[in-house]
Amino acid sequence: MVHTLAAAAAPAVSLADVFASETLGTAILILLGAGVVAGVSLPKSKAENGGWIVITFGWGLAVFAGVYAAYRSGAHLNPAVTVGMLASGAGEYAKGVPVTVASTLVYLAAQMVGAFIGAVAAYLVYKKHFDEDAPAEAKLGVFATGPAIRSYGWNVVTETLATFVLVYVVLRFGNTPAQVGPLAVALLVVGIGLSLGGPTGYAINPARDLGPRIAHAVLPIRGKGSSDWAYAWVPVVGPLLGGLLAGLLAQVF
Amino acid sequence: MVHTLAAAAAPAVSLADVFASETLGTAILILLGAGVVAGVSLPKSKAENGGWIVITFGWGLAVFAGVYAAYRSGAHLNPAVTVGMLASGAGEYAKGVPVTVASTLVYLAAQMVGAFIGAVAAYLVYKKHFDEDAPAEAKLGVFATGPAIRSYGWNVVTETLATFVLVYVVLRFGNTPAQVGPLAVALLVVGIGLSLGGPTGYAINPARDLGPRIAHAVLPIRGKGSSDWAYAWVPVVGPLLGGLLAGLLAQVF
Amino acid sequence: MVHTLAAAAAPAVSLADVFASETLGTAILILLGAGVVAGVSLPKSKAENGGWIVITFGWGLAVFAGVYAAYRSGAHLNPAVTVGMLASGAGEYAKGVPVTVASTLVYLAAQMVGAFIGAVAAYLVYKKHFDEDAPAEAKLGVFATGPAIRSYGWNVVTETLATFVLVYVVLRFGNTPAQVGPLAVALLVVGIGLSLGGPTGYAINPARDLGPRIAHAVLPIRGKGSSDWAYAWVPVVGPLLGGLLAGLLAQVF
Amino acid sequence: MVHTLAAAAAPAVSLADVFASETLGTAILILLGAGVVAGVSLPKSKAENGGWIVITFGWGLAVFAGVYAAYRSGAHLNPAVTVGMLASGAGEYAKGVPVTVASTLVYLAAQMVGAFIGAVAAYLVYKKHFDEDAPAEAKLGVFATGPAIRSYGWNVVTETLATFVLVYVVLRFGNTPAQVGPLAVALLVVGIGLSLGGPTGYAINPARDLGPRIAHAVLPIRGKGSSDWAYAWVPVVGPLLGGLLAGLLAQVF
Repeated sequence: MVHTLAAAAAPAVSLADVFASETLGTAILILLGAGVVAGVSLPKSKAENGGWIVITFGWGLAVFAGVYAAYRSGAHLNPAVTVGMLASGAGEYAKGVPVTVASTLVYLAAQMVGAFIGAVAAYLVYKKHFDEDAPAEAKLGVFATGPAIRSYGWNVVTETLATFVLVYVVLRFGNTPAQVGPLAVALLVVGIGLSLGGPTGYAINPARDLGPRIAHAVLPIRGKGSSDWAYAWVPVVGPLLGGLLAGLLAQVF
Repeated sequence: MVHTLAAAAAPAVSLADVFASETLGTAILILLGAGVVAGVSLPKSKAENGGWIVITFGWGLAVFAGVYAAYRSGAHLNPAVTVGMLASGAGEYAKGVPVTVASTLVYLAAQMVGAFIGAVAAYLVYKKHFDEDAPAEAKLGVFATGPAIRSYGWNVVTETLATFVLVYVVLRFGNTPAQVGPLAVALLVVGIGLSLGGPTGYAINPARDLGPRIAHAVLPIRGKGSSDWAYAWVPVVGPLLGGLLAGLLAQVF
Repeated sequence: MVHTLAAAAAPAVSLADVFASETLGTAILILLGAGVVAGVSLPKSKAENGGWIVITFGWGLAVFAGVYAAYRSGAHLNPAVTVGMLASGAGEYAKGVPVTVASTLVYLAAQMVGAFIGAVAAYLVYKKHFDEDAPAEAKLGVFATGPAIRSYGWNVVTETLATFVLVYVVLRFGNTPAQVGPLAVALLVVGIGLSLGGPTGYAINPARDLGPRIAHAVLPIRGKGSSDWAYAWVPVVGPLLGGLLAGLLAQVF
Repeated sequence: MVHTLAAAAAPAVSLADVFASETLGTAILILLGAGVVAGVSLPKSKAENGGWIVITFGWGLAVFAGVYAAYRSGAHLNPAVTVGMLASGAGEYAKGVPVTVASTLVYLAAQMVGAFIGAVAAYLVYKKHFDEDAPAEAKLGVFATGPAIRSYGWNVVTETLATFVLVYVVLRFGNTPAQVGPLAVALLVVGIGLSLGGPTGYAINPARDLGPRIAHAVLPIRGKGSSDWAYAWVPVVGPLLGGLLAGLLAQVF
């Protein structure tokens, strides 16, 4: 991800290109990511009760698809990655995209817009299953994460540590010669999900949680309940903190 | 897939070669793809009740094997991919295979023939299990997809969006330096299955559905029921639409 | 596999080297392959009831490990691969190993010896679990394959078609530029297992079945029953036939 | 792994760098590895009862992440790998790190420290789940391995053979051209877990077991029981023996 992926995009990339690229990539990420949760948890889906291995591979391969689609902007797809790169002292967000206040804001905005669009698309794919009777929590769970045991402080700890691993390893990809490209970050996300997803459902990405949560609030979903705004800050603050720490540590080492 | 895979086949490739390559590749794709459904859903199979993770990895790795076998024709194996390349304005379908009316028809014909042959081969592999008592729907499900909730309009939406992701990302593979070859499309298909397969069983390929459905209608399968021709247009129209949209968007970006 | 893997071993490789390499590689293949069946089916194992996904990934990654260990001989590890290369008209079995009667026999002998050793090693790893009460069929199943529905003719058809896919695709690996090395054949074996393993447990390798079956007959396994010699010819004849057909087709195309 | 991974770190690497790199890498390995066991076995986790496929992919991808993080020291992350390299007669532990008594001790010390830190981090991630009622054995199982059937001699045999496969194949990675980098060792660990993990839970790494066991003894875990020190020597001795045998065999071949 990040730098090495954008090798084909050598010359300057306009901020409009960055916006389009991050939006499309994040939309595909969330379409597939929200999709796998819908598939496992909504009634009558062929993937119903597919289990944790289905959820985690589904999210990992959602990243895989999104990264290929967002090659021009270096495929951050995640404000925690953008913040991590900023904190690491990188000069560019992708080949031809210098780190500035403007470019930072374009990344963050595109990630939010893309996440919202992706969530709407996932809703359309599973429309007839959302129309079935199911617990309101299951329907919210397609869009946003929630804690297995609610405890804001510890939930932040979990999200911070999980995102630290994500961003630190992503920032180190360039140091190890391997030609697997987007597969590396896909498998890293599978691994973080398998291992650290148990307590909070691993947002590890503020846009991944907040964008779809807004979609949940806005969409006319049958039998939907609360969007659980009380929890919404946790998957924003934890991942940003984790990305920040990873960027700072990467700068030191 | 597509272009980059055919690097070894630099000089002109005859349409007879294209036909043979696409036929064999699609036959292997469907042999393994129909096979995994047979393995999971037919009585007494050792893979019985293997679950959604088995189905999705089985289909993804079916693509993996088919792509290696069809290297000469660029391994479309799917009319939606061929249509997507056409719509994207590509000059060649594979190294040495120019885009023409004739070559387009050869791809489509070979994909249909290959899908039919692959379905017959899967029937032979699981012959003794087809001879067992099982619901007619389970036996049809080995060959053709069907909706979890029948609603032709929404089923088309699902197939269109899922195929859009497939074809758009495939058309972008060449932009990201990675040396994983056919593994990329295999994992993409695993991901689409995990995430977007719940409502319709993800045909995402008109030949994958129609060729085996014809085989189901023709073969002397014990206790088979209807071939569900009422639904047959959905996994043709949806994927073609998705491929078309992906090709057009790829041309714009 | 096969040719391309042995690139590091440019100069002539002695038949003693081939023997050692194939023996060690096949031993590791069977240690891990028999091991995963033991893990899933023997009492009190932590992997008990892991399911078909565990079995198929276990066998695929057994091939993965075995291929790395047998790099010098090109890592056939399977008489069906050796026969397929012979039938394809290849000049060498690996870089520096010409195709001769002697080298063919060395490959086949080493594969059998390695398979026997690997089965003994798997027995030692799971010794305390073999000492538990379990059906004799479960204990035999660690060593040798058996049909879900006994029908020698159709069982041969299944093994022939499954091995055809294995050997044909392996013979095509060199045509597609990808740098995944032994991962390709590992995933191919996972895919064949997922899709075509249901009826017979996919030997797809005469040595994989016969060597461990001899080990089963010889070892002092507690409460073991018959070694089912009546079936033993099926996983020898079917795979050899499949490998032969694949080699001939590869020569034509 | 090992040598080839450190290609980017050509000049001399200080022992302080080695210590920091191995500590961080092993900490990430154990954070994710202990994490997946916590996720599957502690109450109310979203990954609860994920099964053996979740455990084994979780540990494999834990290695994946750890290896990227520890690129500077060649990512041993395991005393059995360090001992195997020593026994194989290698001149360097990583590019720019000569084999000496001092460097050997730095690797071993960092691996132990990192494993302890990683276990503490996993405890923090799952803190609220450790606070729930659960059998003491389940809580210990997050940190340290234990035998399915206690029999110290056979348990040592299992750990020795499993580690032999790990270290021997790792020492052979350099001979096979493939560009998958850390993915190779990750999949190897998945495979060993699937196939040989049933009897003892596959420590295959003395630091992986001993460091977290000490953390278990020290941490104020609610309702924790014995740290089972009677077994603690098995996952130290078995893996060291396996690594030693693999290194010696690699030197011979």
